[in-house]
Amino acid sequence: MKIAIAGYGNLGRGVELSIRQNPDCELFGVFTRRSPDSVKTVTGAAVYHIDDILNYKEEIDVVVICGGSATDLPKQTPDLAKNFNVVDSFDTHAKIPEHFDVVNAAAMGSGKVAVISAGWDPGMFSLNRLYASAILPDGKDYTFWGKGVSQGHSDAIRRIDGVKNAKQYTIPIDKALDAVRSGAMPELTTREKHLRECFVVAEDGADKEKIESEIKTMPNYFADYDTTVHFITEEDLIRDHSGIPHGGFVIRSGKTGENNENTHIIEYSLKLDSNPEFTASVLVACARAAYRMNNEGMKGAKTVFDIAPSYLSAKSPEELRKEML
Amino acid sequence: MKIAIAGYGNLGRGVELSIRQNPDCELFGVFTRRSPDSVKTVTGAAVYHIDDILNYKEEIDVVVICGGSATDLPKQTPDLAKNFNVVDSFDTHAKIPEHFDVVNAAAMGSGKVAVISAGWDPGMFSLNRLYASAILPDGKDYTFWGKGVSQGHSDAIRRIDGVKNAKQYTIPIDKALDAVRSGAMPELTTREKHLRECFVVAEDGADKEKIESEIKTMPNYFADYDTTVHFITEEDLIRDHSGIPHGGFVIRSGKTGENNENTHIIEYSLKLDSNPEFTASVLVACARAAYRMNNEGMKGAKTVFDIAPSYLSAKSPEELRKEML
Repeated sequence: MKIAIAGYGNLGRGVELSIRQNPDCELFGVFTRRSPDSVKTVTGAAVYHIDDILNYKEEIDVVVICGGSATDLPKQTPDLAKNFNVVDSFDTHAKIPEHFDVVNAAAMGSGKVAVISAGWDPGMFSLNRLYASAILPDGKDYTFWGKGVSQGHSDAIRRIDGVKNAKQYTIPIDKALDAVRSGAMPELTTREKHLRECFVVAEDGADKEKIESEIKTMPNYFADYDTTVHFITEEDLIRDHSGIPHGGFVIRSGKTGENNENTHIIEYSLKLDSNPEFTASVLVACARAAYRMNNEGMKGAKTVFDIAPSYLSAKSPEELRKEML
Repeated sequence: MKIAIAGYGNLGRGVELSIRQNPDCELFGVFTRRSPDSVKTVTGAAVYHIDDILNYKEEIDVVVICGGSATDLPKQTPDLAKNFNVVDSFDTHAKIPEHFDVVNAAAMGSGKVAVISAGWDPGMFSLNRLYASAILPDGKDYTFWGKGVSQGHSDAIRRIDGVKNAKQYTIPIDKALDAVRSGAMPELTTREKHLRECFVVAEDGADKEKIESEIKTMPNYFADYDTTVHFITEEDLIRDHSGIPHGGFVIRSGKTGENNENTHIIEYSLKLDSNPEFTASVLVACARAAYRMNNEGMKGAKTVFDIAPSYLSAKSPEELRKEML
């Protein structure tokens, strides 16, 4: 199966590295909006201009689209689905139904499979919400994120006057996790679920008190949370906070029995050293599924909810039943 | 969707109770090998003799077969799949490929869908092994069971001379769990992964030292484990050890990156107050999937690997994308 990568940032590099780990997958090349000469790939893969991708239509089995959800994917995914099986990681939860419809129209027209919103949330976390609620209809589920770097929150801090650089960690609160795991089905406020820890490099002579206050009172981003701000040097930021870790928890507790006397806890958690590399690994498994499903005659937009799990694995159904069931 | 239950023990009762929690499901009735008059259902559901089930062929959408894996299911599942969509919880891992083939032949012939080996292991644990290994091919996964009651081990103790009653708990060892969660990918022996704790009621005048020694040296069941034996009274056993809790952990750690420098941990865990009621809840979700898949023209034997997750949920694909993705 030959995979092309459209867009070459952290996620695209992650897909390039993940393909190396999957012997049934081969990287056709990277497609970029930049000048191909200016892009150097990690593994030495060929680089093409995105405008030329139709020239390689017959050679590419699936395109993994590694653009951003704000402006890239709403346009790129339906465009590319007109000619290719595609996978994207569209993660603006509120706009998924709309994105699905637009991509579905394109993929139904071309007879291709387009997997949207793959990754871990949306993606693996969504799957676990679905499975757990289908099994335990009388229950309640909770999603916690972190400990991990939130790019959006880090960017918001960087836009404050006097801030040179910043990293923000989202951290789930142990007390809330424990309450959920107890089966008590607590009602939790935003503040009770997560806290926010910020590492900030201030410009020389900047008013640190003012920066800290601006962060802590920023609506939507920080005002509803307990937020800690640490001022550190640029050297310390680079040394200690260059990684892009993330993760989180999906927990459902539910009741069964004649009088709801039995409690069950289903918990799924991820602890990821590299958010983009893990997301990329999910995208590659979904690329395999898209290719196989299309080979079986399926078409249209799909999400992880529509993919029978065996399509994701390199193993045959017989091997899966023998080794993993 | 009208569901019939074949076999009415702990699992069958669990299915009966689970159907009450699913508004799109209705219990047609219970089919038993016993005299129907002698069976009293929890919810007052009708009871029929299993020999009469073909009389209700047109009224039943799915039969959930709640027999044992040793002798019941190898015969019942292919027999019933000749006329009905069925679901079973066949859990003899080594014989799954053979069971699949026999059931598949029956269900292909009838044009019905037969979901085999549903539950949590095989079942939800299998799914998590598959998803995690498809995403992180360069890694290693571990399954731990417990803390929970092992019926097989409890029975083995009860067969010892001088034992009146017994309950055995399988307990995962924290040190092993922590080593796995660290991403170190340890090689673990049987003894390092689980320990076994036994609560035994001895008959009056029985040689307790001899019983304890017989338990601890019993091949396959206990000899390879660190085993603790507590002698207690029948009253204490009934008061403190009448439940059927179980659960466990599926953990995969895997590497990504240019030089495998990033470690990721995927963990799925279950903590169940009632093993049969949770298993039953999985079977009912699979019954919904079997019915829907058959309505779409699918047929043959299926496992959880072959079921697109959306079939399991009572919600529509649109609702799932909007609310859970």
